[in-house]
Amino acid sequence: MRYELYYWPMVQGRGEFVRLALEDAGADYVDVARGKNGMGRLERFMGRYPRAPFASPYLRAGKLVIGQTANILHYLGPRLGLAPKNEADRLWIHQLNLTLADWLVEAHDVHHPIGSGLYYEEQKREAKRRAADFLANRLPKFFGYFEGILARNPARSGWLSGRRLSTADLALFQMIEGLRYAFPRAMRRREKKAPRTLALRERVAARRGIAAYLASPRRIPFNEYGIFRHYPELDR
Amino acid sequence: MRYELYYWPMVQGRGEFVRLALEDAGADYVDVARGKNGMGRLERFMGRYPRAPFASPYLRAGKLVIGQTANILHYLGPRLGLAPKNEADRLWIHQLNLTLADWLVEAHDVHHPIGSGLYYEEQKREAKRRAADFLANRLPKFFGYFEGILARNPARSGWLSGRRLSTADLALFQMIEGLRYAFPRAMRRREKKAPRTLALRERVAARRGIAAYLASPRRIPFNEYGIFRHYPELDR
Repeated sequence: MRYELYYWPMVQGRGEFVRLALEDAGADYVDVARGKNGMGRLERFMGRYPRAPFASPYLRAGKLVIGQTANILHYLGPRLGLAPKNEADRLWIHQLNLTLADWLVEAHDVHHPIGSGLYYEEQKREAKRRAADFLANRLPKFFGYFEGILARNPARSGWLSGRRLSTADLALFQMIEGLRYAFPRAMRRREKKAPRTLALRERVAARRGIAAYLASPRRIPFNEYGIFRHYPELDR
Repeated sequence: MRYELYYWPMVQGRGEFVRLALEDAGADYVDVARGKNGMGRLERFMGRYPRAPFASPYLRAGKLVIGQTANILHYLGPRLGLAPKNEADRLWIHQLNLTLADWLVEAHDVHHPIGSGLYYEEQKREAKRRAADFLANRLPKFFGYFEGILARNPARSGWLSGRRLSTADLALFQMIEGLRYAFPRAMRRREKKAPRTLALRERVAARRGIAAYLASPRRIPFNEYGIFRHYPELDR
């Protein structure tokens, strides 16, 4: 099966969680909007399409058009060998991915607390307040949660669920990368208290498919159009 | 199967999306935290539990403990007759529920744009700005999306997917109820442009299980501790 990923071509954004899964698995896929006339093709299954997604990313897989990042990962997981096939484990991995998606929204809203349609510069004052709350309260809470899950995984594998890497591990890796880019100062302090999460990060980065991807031009550099943005004034 | 729902006993909140599904189906369930010593029992499967949810609501179903509202609905759907069993339709209904969950976060963040751990009064100025953006831009966008999905459902059933009601229809009903409570002025104008969504709302409210539930003391009234809050200064 050749998968078609539809997502903005200039940012990692939410699409990156899907790209990482496809790349780790060595799946056959096309990043549609990065090709010729890409931006025009991005809306192919939006608008009048009966089961149109509300927003990208969405994945075309044969006759299926699947929207919502975590939903795409839920679909791909067992097909790419990145989730077991049994329902209990799939639900748990999906639950972890949804919690990571909640964290991601909060990381985004640090620089856009008032409205996603406004520029950062139009909500800079509010962003400073939200950043202070995010770094003081939310970052420790989420890190503590995932450290605890890693510590209590009965398989003691170093992965979030069971004995093998899943889409949730790849998503946690991406969260760390993004948070390091956006908040290097705050993360240097925070990482010291999250050894299990950091060990997971290293293992993901060293995987053959991921290492090759990160070193390739397919990995779009972080920038200030994406979800994770580095504004030094927010990183106190 | 007797289901156990774990959620805050004083608000509708996210738990209400699960309650509506259980009530519509006439399922056997216990709303654990509304019983004796309820608040203490709320944390039973949090903390040290190996597959602890990050937050409530969570559902206990036999040996399974399932967190994340949309994940719970994804699990319950086919079991309660509120989603078909085939993968394509389940993915689509889940996608709709995840989009409704995104909308819900935005409705919440209107009154808490800076931090969920702060009081509304501490972020009232920012809330006014966010409310203006939400009502002007986000409310029309989400309403337009769901109106379009209802209009283009090939089954022409008046439901979001296929010929029968699903968990997504119940969730859309709850969004309308919450938004009417929080923003009565804005909604009076908006509803005129969303006839299909309003017709769906009426049909859900008239269902036997839902009508009985809404008239019962099990339906917690909306209040200013929940996700949907009525602050007149935000409803311009």
